[in-house]
Amino acid sequence: VLLSAEQAHYLRNVMRLAPGAHVRLFNGRHGEWRAELADIGKKGANAMVGERTRPHRDDPDLWLLFAPIKRARIDFIAEKASELGVAAMQPVFTRYTDASRVNVGRLRVHAVEAAEQCARVTVPAVFDAERLDRVLDRWPAGRRLMFCDEKSTDIGIADVLGGIRREQAGPDPGPWAVLIGPEGGFAPDEAQRLRAMPQTVAVGLGERLLRADTAAVAALSCWQAILGDWR
Amino acid sequence: VLLSAEQAHYLRNVMRLAPGAHVRLFNGRHGEWRAELADIGKKGANAMVGERTRPHRDDPDLWLLFAPIKRARIDFIAEKASELGVAAMQPVFTRYTDASRVNVGRLRVHAVEAAEQCARVTVPAVFDAERLDRVLDRWPAGRRLMFCDEKSTDIGIADVLGGIRREQAGPDPGPWAVLIGPEGGFAPDEAQRLRAMPQTVAVGLGERLLRADTAAVAALSCWQAILGDWR
Repeated sequence: VLLSAEQAHYLRNVMRLAPGAHVRLFNGRHGEWRAELADIGKKGANAMVGERTRPHRDDPDLWLLFAPIKRARIDFIAEKASELGVAAMQPVFTRYTDASRVNVGRLRVHAVEAAEQCARVTVPAVFDAERLDRVLDRWPAGRRLMFCDEKSTDIGIADVLGGIRREQAGPDPGPWAVLIGPEGGFAPDEAQRLRAMPQTVAVGLGERLLRADTAAVAALSCWQAILGDWR
Repeated sequence: VLLSAEQAHYLRNVMRLAPGAHVRLFNGRHGEWRAELADIGKKGANAMVGERTRPHRDDPDLWLLFAPIKRARIDFIAEKASELGVAAMQPVFTRYTDASRVNVGRLRVHAVEAAEQCARVTVPAVFDAERLDRVLDRWPAGRRLMFCDEKSTDIGIADVLGGIRREQAGPDPGPWAVLIGPEGGFAPDEAQRLRAMPQTVAVGLGERLLRADTAAVAALSCWQAILGDWR
């Protein structure tokens, strides 16, 4: 198989691999294979594919929506969300978001590297950044939206998700998303709109004020533990 | 009240506050008060204490034991563990730990800053780094030890902790600790010793390989959500 110029750059200049090196390849649809680099250059690389090492495994249909924050912490969110198995990430501009631009390309690089390191056989999508209200305007009817609400310290996340799991017919929780606001929280009209949506599941993460990156990891971990594939 | 030279340095040089500035003070025993800086210098500061803003609130008796990892990620663990409400942190050298020294003073600074930012009214202790086997030699009989075992992908953390919660008499889970290994995992004899301890509760965090910092945040979040004070 032919590897792209970006993949060749990573293998050659970051991983410092030369022809003859052994790698594992996955395509996000059919699993993972052992392979040997045949040749590698600036424009791409060739790899000879050996036996399959792992079957394909779908990730849960879980998205993470998050407000852009400063550089080190947003990179961290992309890395962690990828490790925690999200299918897609969507940066959203909320009313209290400071940033006006997001380098989505850099987030994709972090997401891909984390996917490779944590032995996923898939890579999460990173959607272009968009205003929260526009994302909500076309929100799919069947996708539940976990709203981590700073004001909802009385509805613990484990009780809410545990209740949903008990009511759920099979093991598949269906399409979900987790929404994490900026550190200033949501504007009153945003919170009101979110609470009024039938897809919304409001949860609290205790009384300590969590940074946005902490809240993202905490919420995704609880979701994976209670409803997702950590069971 | 008199503030220390370190606190004065932080207020003056990091927060850029001058006499007359309003701050909130907490002492980890009696709660939090509004206060006004009276004077501030290199050797310390004086603050005039006003009314109490919040009562004292105990954190759960939860420790985090973690193997030292590289700088940015270990600082991150100290920050996140503080936000997630641990009472104490203990760096432990395991057989596969790369680092041989830990700057515990720097971890304390990160833990204190995070406690201030997340509106805790307490500061977590950071114990001096020690070898894991020595820590286990004197492990308290009544403190449960959550062992995040890479090999235990079949025992999901939510099922294990949920079962313990159902059997627990009152709301107080009692003394606990979470143990996170280095990225190379535990040596076979370490894992064997941990599994044989009556205090050990082994849990799995799914099949993706989590970095040590991700595993720490994930395990502490699930504990707080299911057994701790996020309920």
